[in-house]
Amino acid sequence: MRLGTVIGNVWATRKEDGLTGLKFLVVQFEMPDGSPVEAPIIAADQIGAGIGDKVMVTTGSAARFAVPEKDLPIDSVVVGIVDSIDVESR
Amino acid sequence: MRLGTVIGNVWATRKEDGLTGLKFLVVQFEMPDGSPVEAPIIAADQIGAGIGDKVMVTTGSAARFAVPEKDLPIDSVVVGIVDSIDVESR
Amino acid sequence: MRLGTVIGNVWATRKEDGLTGLKFLVVQFEMPDGSPVEAPIIAADQIGAGIGDKVMVTTGSAARFAVPEKDLPIDSVVVGIVDSIDVESR
Amino acid sequence: MRLGTVIGNVWATRKEDGLTGLKFLVVQFEMPDGSPVEAPIIAADQIGAGIGDKVMVTTGSAARFAVPEKDLPIDSVVVGIVDSIDVESR
Amino acid sequence: MRLGTVIGNVWATRKEDGLTGLKFLVVQFEMPDGSPVEAPIIAADQIGAGIGDKVMVTTGSAARFAVPEKDLPIDSVVVGIVDSIDVESR
Repeated sequence: MRLGTVIGNVWATRKEDGLTGLKFLVVQFEMPDGSPVEAPIIAADQIGAGIGDKVMVTTGSAARFAVPEKDLPIDSVVVGIVDSIDVESR
Repeated sequence: MRLGTVIGNVWATRKEDGLTGLKFLVVQFEMPDGSPVEAPIIAADQIGAGIGDKVMVTTGSAARFAVPEKDLPIDSVVVGIVDSIDVESR
Repeated sequence: MRLGTVIGNVWATRKEDGLTGLKFLVVQFEMPDGSPVEAPIIAADQIGAGIGDKVMVTTGSAARFAVPEKDLPIDSVVVGIVDSIDVESR
Repeated sequence: MRLGTVIGNVWATRKEDGLTGLKFLVVQFEMPDGSPVEAPIIAADQIGAGIGDKVMVTTGSAARFAVPEKDLPIDSVVVGIVDSIDVESR
Repeated sequence: MRLGTVIGNVWATRKEDGLTGLKFLVVQFEMPDGSPVEAPIIAADQIGAGIGDKVMVTTGSAARFAVPEKDLPIDSVVVGIVDSIDVESR
């Protein structure tokens, strides 16, 4: 999973059947210290994450398994809202 | 999913069985502000996206689930046409 | 899918069962204008692409679905020979 | 698989059903000589890896197969604790 | 598939059930001319590749299909030992 912060929302009226009703968030992946990594991606969310939340995102085909109806064409989903992250200095 | 803009079309007469009839678009991934990211990719489209549309693209094996006949060898598909994207400044 | 050009062939006598009889091509991914992107990869081919052909390549687990016997360990396959690509200037 | 070192822990109370009870570790991918590569990721662990352990991590949809209940939305899992790695100089 | 050279071995006593008995090799991906690309990865091997062999590696979830018992959490496997590679100069 990737660590990131929710930085926005995306609205798309015209979309694939099956995606209706899903919320789509813009997530910026980041280092444990919060510095941004790579370009922001769009993740589906069904656990209620919002702007500013630090989240865990599952990417790739495994993301589909976060949605009960498992045959959706989604490749990124918020799977957890991070309470705390504890990283050892090396 | 990745955010991008449709910048072109691709035609291929000789192709894998099963891909006949699918439309293939060239999509440039981009940052929320529209600046391009990485090399353009080719995405299947069945929701009617066209040149200049800002789109959401599902990549990887999950893309297959956008097509009713689910056993196609496709790894990128346009799953939504973006109406608006709202990103918080950090 | 990725856009690329076939730049070579690979021969491997000792290989996984099931891959026997498949043709393996070296493909250089590229920008729509033909400039190379990333390191060349090896793609299976069964539509008859050859050196110099501009092709569409499906990568990842979806590549498996280009081969009738669907349980092969392949992650890249040529799915189309590009006739033309039309990209708008931005 | 990727080679890495466990550098931290992540806690997330609010998460996808099914992820409850899984341990999540922060893993820094690295070169065989231990120098870090790319941004740290979050991997599920069920073999008891801890801070400082050198580990093998499976990424992508294959990670799901490390968990008996196979329909979890996870994309990274620790599959081994490395005893030793032996690399030839070139 | 990716082209690479076997540069080492990895031993891990404590690992996921199911991975017992598999051989794990360190593979350095490379350009057709042999120059290294990206960080080395760890690939399962069951065709008998050894240090110095030039190999084809399948990555991602498709790697699982190289192992008869198909539900293993592996994402990289050696699928061929390269006899020769023939690349056209451009």
